[in-house]
Amino acid sequence: MTDTHQARGADALLASLVDNGVCVCFANPGTTELDLVRALERQDGMRGFIGLQENVCTGAADGYGRMTGKPACTLLHLGPGFANGIANLHNARRARTPIVNLVGDHTSWHLPFDAPLTSDIESLATPVSGWVHRITSVADAAPAARAAVRASLARGGQGATLIVPADFQYGLSTGAPTTRVASAPARQAGSAFDLAACARRLEAAGNIVFLLGGGGDASGLGVRAQQATARLCAALGARAYAETFPSRAERGQGLPDFDRLPYFPEPARAALDPADVVVLAGALPPVTYFGYEGHASALVEADRLLALSAPGEDAASRLEQLADHLQAPALAASGATLPAWDDGALTPPGIAAVLAHELPAQAIVSVEGGTCGYPFYAASAAARPHTTLTNTGGAIGQGLPVAMGAAVACPDRKVVALVSDGSTQYTIQTLWSMAHEALDIVVLVAANHQYAILRNELRRGNATLGEKAAAMTSLDKPRIDWVTLAQAYGVPGSRVGTTRELQSRLQQAFAQRGPRLIEMAL
Amino acid sequence: MTDTHQARGADALLASLVDNGVCVCFANPGTTELDLVRALERQDGMRGFIGLQENVCTGAADGYGRMTGKPACTLLHLGPGFANGIANLHNARRARTPIVNLVGDHTSWHLPFDAPLTSDIESLATPVSGWVHRITSVADAAPAARAAVRASLARGGQGATLIVPADFQYGLSTGAPTTRVASAPARQAGSAFDLAACARRLEAAGNIVFLLGGGGDASGLGVRAQQATARLCAALGARAYAETFPSRAERGQGLPDFDRLPYFPEPARAALDPADVVVLAGALPPVTYFGYEGHASALVEADRLLALSAPGEDAASRLEQLADHLQAPALAASGATLPAWDDGALTPPGIAAVLAHELPAQAIVSVEGGTCGYPFYAASAAARPHTTLTNTGGAIGQGLPVAMGAAVACPDRKVVALVSDGSTQYTIQTLWSMAHEALDIVVLVAANHQYAILRNELRRGNATLGEKAAAMTSLDKPRIDWVTLAQAYGVPGSRVGTTRELQSRLQQAFAQRGPRLIEMAL
Repeated sequence: MTDTHQARGADALLASLVDNGVCVCFANPGTTELDLVRALERQDGMRGFIGLQENVCTGAADGYGRMTGKPACTLLHLGPGFANGIANLHNARRARTPIVNLVGDHTSWHLPFDAPLTSDIESLATPVSGWVHRITSVADAAPAARAAVRASLARGGQGATLIVPADFQYGLSTGAPTTRVASAPARQAGSAFDLAACARRLEAAGNIVFLLGGGGDASGLGVRAQQATARLCAALGARAYAETFPSRAERGQGLPDFDRLPYFPEPARAALDPADVVVLAGALPPVTYFGYEGHASALVEADRLLALSAPGEDAASRLEQLADHLQAPALAASGATLPAWDDGALTPPGIAAVLAHELPAQAIVSVEGGTCGYPFYAASAAARPHTTLTNTGGAIGQGLPVAMGAAVACPDRKVVALVSDGSTQYTIQTLWSMAHEALDIVVLVAANHQYAILRNELRRGNATLGEKAAAMTSLDKPRIDWVTLAQAYGVPGSRVGTTRELQSRLQQAFAQRGPRLIEMAL
Repeated sequence: MTDTHQARGADALLASLVDNGVCVCFANPGTTELDLVRALERQDGMRGFIGLQENVCTGAADGYGRMTGKPACTLLHLGPGFANGIANLHNARRARTPIVNLVGDHTSWHLPFDAPLTSDIESLATPVSGWVHRITSVADAAPAARAAVRASLARGGQGATLIVPADFQYGLSTGAPTTRVASAPARQAGSAFDLAACARRLEAAGNIVFLLGGGGDASGLGVRAQQATARLCAALGARAYAETFPSRAERGQGLPDFDRLPYFPEPARAALDPADVVVLAGALPPVTYFGYEGHASALVEADRLLALSAPGEDAASRLEQLADHLQAPALAASGATLPAWDDGALTPPGIAAVLAHELPAQAIVSVEGGTCGYPFYAASAAARPHTTLTNTGGAIGQGLPVAMGAAVACPDRKVVALVSDGSTQYTIQTLWSMAHEALDIVVLVAANHQYAILRNELRRGNATLGEKAAAMTSLDKPRIDWVTLAQAYGVPGSRVGTTRELQSRLQQAFAQRGPRLIEMAL
């Protein structure tokens, strides 16, 4: 790195990111980001990964952040490029994932001329960013990058968007050199915790449900918190659920078998209504996913809630303290067993059973789409220990990009993307990045050639599915050929129609490295 | 249609749209739009078209609006679904295309609970919408839809975004019935025009350039305006250019051969600097595309500009009045001839020449990507009369969707999408909709397996392309197999490597109906 180059704003910015622990950049740059591309050339501490569409980049940053607890950066092209990545930034916001978005903009003196690509980046960024900042000088580049990293780690993790006009990338910095700043997350005061009062309330309650929120190691769905919750359930005769869409949940052998809170309001209410107390361990107060006529949005009234820890806080320690205080017994072995399966045509439960049997230890499973997502979570209690990542925000098209980011974050762990055909089309370009980087990902596409979730909603209350509505929720004419599609992007593909074929293909895929796609014909 | 159904907000809304001339809906609905989907079932006046990703829908609405001058509607799923369509709405904004976006939202009483899909739709919509409105009652649905259509036609065409909470779709309307409102565009006062003063200024000038803006029949790049401009050029010894990225331009035999104003500042300045007067006929004052060091953003100073008509105004009549006033001669035949081509490996000029030779009369060509876009425009002066649509806003991924919308708008005209491999990936899912609807579109993909525009920018000033920069602008590892990719989506595909092969494939494709993809190996 020469002195001349180091002094440019783009170099100072990247050096500041690297100094603050950011070492991965998911990029889809354009002309206004080219000085940052040139600076990447000179910055050995930052690895760049290309996505062919921006939602690939932002979803990958989400997957990376969920697995590492630290931010990747994205590199996006002005407002329109940023806009293409908003949907997965929305999911990342719900997952509380730290991400630093670098958005290039026109050279500052060019903005008043309203050239074709000029747009209101701030208005686009605010809904998915806890922090938005526009650099206004070259000397601002390094401290703004440092501030962006700190902001991304605040409030339990959030998006931090830094707008970088091209002239401040290119210009020579005349300010002071970058100061090294620790990459530790910005701490905040934890919520109040009165151990004795909590214990008294639980001991007085007749029917208790624990609701566990996802996240990192200390979250409600980390190993320690789940083990402590199992002790509490045994001591109190309580039940426990994972929140419906955890950002990250540990699962499998050695862990208790807590299912996810059901999606639709009727079964969710059936699970929660009997409870005198619903304990929130890193979960938000549960609400229905959509507003349904005749159903209150809040699934549990405030006076039945006991907030043990907020999302992003250390749920594990509080659960452990509570278990010790209540002299809860040591953890008994989970009684979960792997579900049996027979050879035959594929069904969602059959797929779930085969995958649960074959899943390698320490696998990461990116789940999107309800067709196989729910059955797999139910079947996976006795699978080898693994990590599950789900769609937290409901913006579809995150299954493949999150798998990509997880594979970049954890190159020694096998990644599985368990996805449905409808949602996978939104970010299908991810397949190319998987091939380009030879990422160790097995993509399992449940191909039912329809938007099944919409049909389920259309049919609620025994309603008939009309002809146009059927046409508008069909992916059947023509059927997408997933094997050919994968091959076009350089990913070896195959199609299976029976559980036995699926088992065989999975065994092959898990014995090798590199991306594979398996179309599961339903 | 039963009375019960007619009274629902969704039915009233769609009926109001149909009454106001909107008869096409490009949709990617979700759960919060299902009552609008049910209402589509009952509304014979509206045709629905599915896109597998929202940018397909918004780009198609842009193409439809450019060709018809009236709005299509889109149907999008809350903030994240809308966000996926922003990039092509940005292009539509620059094209001044009328579009009505229908965005579902949570049932109004559910919004305070901040469920996973809740987002700030207004903040996302404002940068690409001239008008944003949220329905606050069932009775509001019909008048709001009418207002949205009027708003979309105001200011020469713009995006109008109507947010429709689910309960106001489902609820029974208790308001007055929908009043029929004429679908005529909202008129606005035109800019001032002093014919004699304009004529005097032009007669006094030594060197004149006309800059023609794209749009509908009366725009600077409609037939009448170009013919009048040719007369003026002959009378005044003037030159004329199309703006660099016209939304819509008529081109070919019977029309004068006006090239596009060059993209990079050096050649653009070479064209404009000699002019004493630059006449803007529906074009904005020209600015550089990006801010370049050493180049002023404004390509022409204000005192050399003569604003004859603003974008969206009737440029043709003013040019004709001017030509008559100056007693300009009748139009002479254009001297343009079709460029010759020899058999051999494909080059951009060779592709342009072959396509110009083979293009059927009244074809519509959606151009995206510079590799073949510029050479084709230059070669097409003597082609059969056709219409060209270009990328107006610089948000890439519009080539296929705009072609789709144009094909829906003009089912009797052959549509060609002349695109590059880099930009086409952003909305590759459009191929499925083309197959699903059997649209009569020939997709020509120039496959150079790189982001050529970025490499050109990186190499400006004889700079060297670094290793990482080359990797980040390469689409080479692996090469995307476009033929296989098209087939996966149900579009017949083929690959050509020579001009002769291209000619043969084009002749076949133009002799048949339905979608085809031809990969042009460069």
